[in-house]
Amino acid sequence: MSTVKTDCRPSAHAGWVTEVQTPSLRFSMAVNEILYQGKSEFQEIIVADTKQFGRVLSLDGVFQTSDAEEWVYHEMIAHVPLYMHPHPERVLIIGGGDGGSAREVLRHPEVRAVDMVEIDAEVIRLAKQYFPQIASALIAEPDRLHVTVGDGLAKVAATENEYDVIIVDCSDPIGPGEGLFQRQFYRDACRALKAGGLLVQQTDSPFLRGALVHDIVRVMSDEFAYARLYLAAIPIYPSGMHSFMLASKGEDPLTALRRPVDIAPLRYYNDAIAKAAFVLPNFVKTLLRERPQE
Amino acid sequence: MSTVKTDCRPSAHAGWVTEVQTPSLRFSMAVNEILYQGKSEFQEIIVADTKQFGRVLSLDGVFQTSDAEEWVYHEMIAHVPLYMHPHPERVLIIGGGDGGSAREVLRHPEVRAVDMVEIDAEVIRLAKQYFPQIASALIAEPDRLHVTVGDGLAKVAATENEYDVIIVDCSDPIGPGEGLFQRQFYRDACRALKAGGLLVQQTDSPFLRGALVHDIVRVMSDEFAYARLYLAAIPIYPSGMHSFMLASKGEDPLTALRRPVDIAPLRYYNDAIAKAAFVLPNFVKTLLRERPQE
Repeated sequence: MSTVKTDCRPSAHAGWVTEVQTPSLRFSMAVNEILYQGKSEFQEIIVADTKQFGRVLSLDGVFQTSDAEEWVYHEMIAHVPLYMHPHPERVLIIGGGDGGSAREVLRHPEVRAVDMVEIDAEVIRLAKQYFPQIASALIAEPDRLHVTVGDGLAKVAATENEYDVIIVDCSDPIGPGEGLFQRQFYRDACRALKAGGLLVQQTDSPFLRGALVHDIVRVMSDEFAYARLYLAAIPIYPSGMHSFMLASKGEDPLTALRRPVDIAPLRYYNDAIAKAAFVLPNFVKTLLRERPQE
Repeated sequence: MSTVKTDCRPSAHAGWVTEVQTPSLRFSMAVNEILYQGKSEFQEIIVADTKQFGRVLSLDGVFQTSDAEEWVYHEMIAHVPLYMHPHPERVLIIGGGDGGSAREVLRHPEVRAVDMVEIDAEVIRLAKQYFPQIASALIAEPDRLHVTVGDGLAKVAATENEYDVIIVDCSDPIGPGEGLFQRQFYRDACRALKAGGLLVQQTDSPFLRGALVHDIVRVMSDEFAYARLYLAAIPIYPSGMHSFMLASKGEDPLTALRRPVDIAPLRYYNDAIAKAAFVLPNFVKTLLRERPQE
């Protein structure tokens, strides 16, 4: 899910739903129908049927996922770590309440068990109701998937040497996901991983949130052997250029061999993308070294 | 410059300037001041001082370039062909009235002469006035640069075996740039190139205009030995994922050697990006083969 939190409240009126991406940028989608609008214990939730992207989920005014392009995010957060890990048997998903990450992880036959810890039961409920394709794994409830509603921070703090891959599929560094961008979490998550384990987390737009990306890489680099940024083009996210951080207890993601694709169809990820996504434009390399003024 | 033309007229009011990216998507920037708003012989022109991206140029309601991120587009349209060509001595720029492409091309010491043919003198005038950093080459008027106001179609139709690289830096397939997306233009441009020559053109968002991208690749593949798509992340363009087509009379852009970077600083392009930009997600590979329904 996504990012770029601002002070604004969710907005849906006059046939449009709008994300205030930054105080100075607005992105609006024409709406056929607002299917749901309400407030959970944790956040404002909107499900809108839009003309361009089909059904769209918005949390606290930030577009998270849509029927038309959810596969970019979910393929890139799941398959990049899973094809890099030589034997990904046990996977923990923190967040990911829409079910898209679990769906992609479960396509890997090597994966024997997926634990998913989502803080907001309402997101799971609404995903099953309004996004059945994204939430297909939540609906099917395969034996390999164990979903709990709870706090991902507490989960990793109580876990040691258990997972091959941890996927942090959270929304923002402000709000329910706040603690998931802090040092103690990375330290706990590193300990929750087995030797050679990998953690992946979405880390926002390098164009619009360069200082945040810089800070996360610095902290993750302290806590893991390697922390490498990779990019994907996500049309409903601010600037379209989205980043993910892949942190490794073992091999360097820049040089590690990947297992070749053995599942189909995939709409974004392929063996060449697995390498090219880590190739960074100069301005991104610069902001990893030097914290940009914002 | 960019793309995704719709029926709408430019919009600037109440402190915001808006692009109607498609009939169902709107992207708005908060404005400090509208510096210019008028109509040339060819198009509606707005120059806005925005809070997020500095000064922004809008043509017929479509954001073309901005101070804050113009270097992505201009580096990627200029350096990808220029570093692939072994001896780029003569370059033709069609369009490019803001001057950014000329500025980047002229950084290559191998380039002996740049001819630029822009149809709208008003764009050149406004670029010099409001975008002095982008238009620096237009203002400096170096001996190597020859700017004419005129029709790029007529120029290439009257030219044979003259250029090493042609850069088509145009706006839309609708409006003043319309003929620049048609078969006769590509045929003429191919003849205007020397042996081994390269043509590059911006070709819109694969997410939002897949059928257009498909059609252009098909026609360019007929007229040139190779036509290969590459991608760059442009935050003010629709979906953020922008494509360019590199057509070659000689080597295949996918396998050709590039000359290594020898100019600095560059903010986006580097030797690794030169290859990675041609690595396409599966959905883009698919739309090059099969025309998507839109």
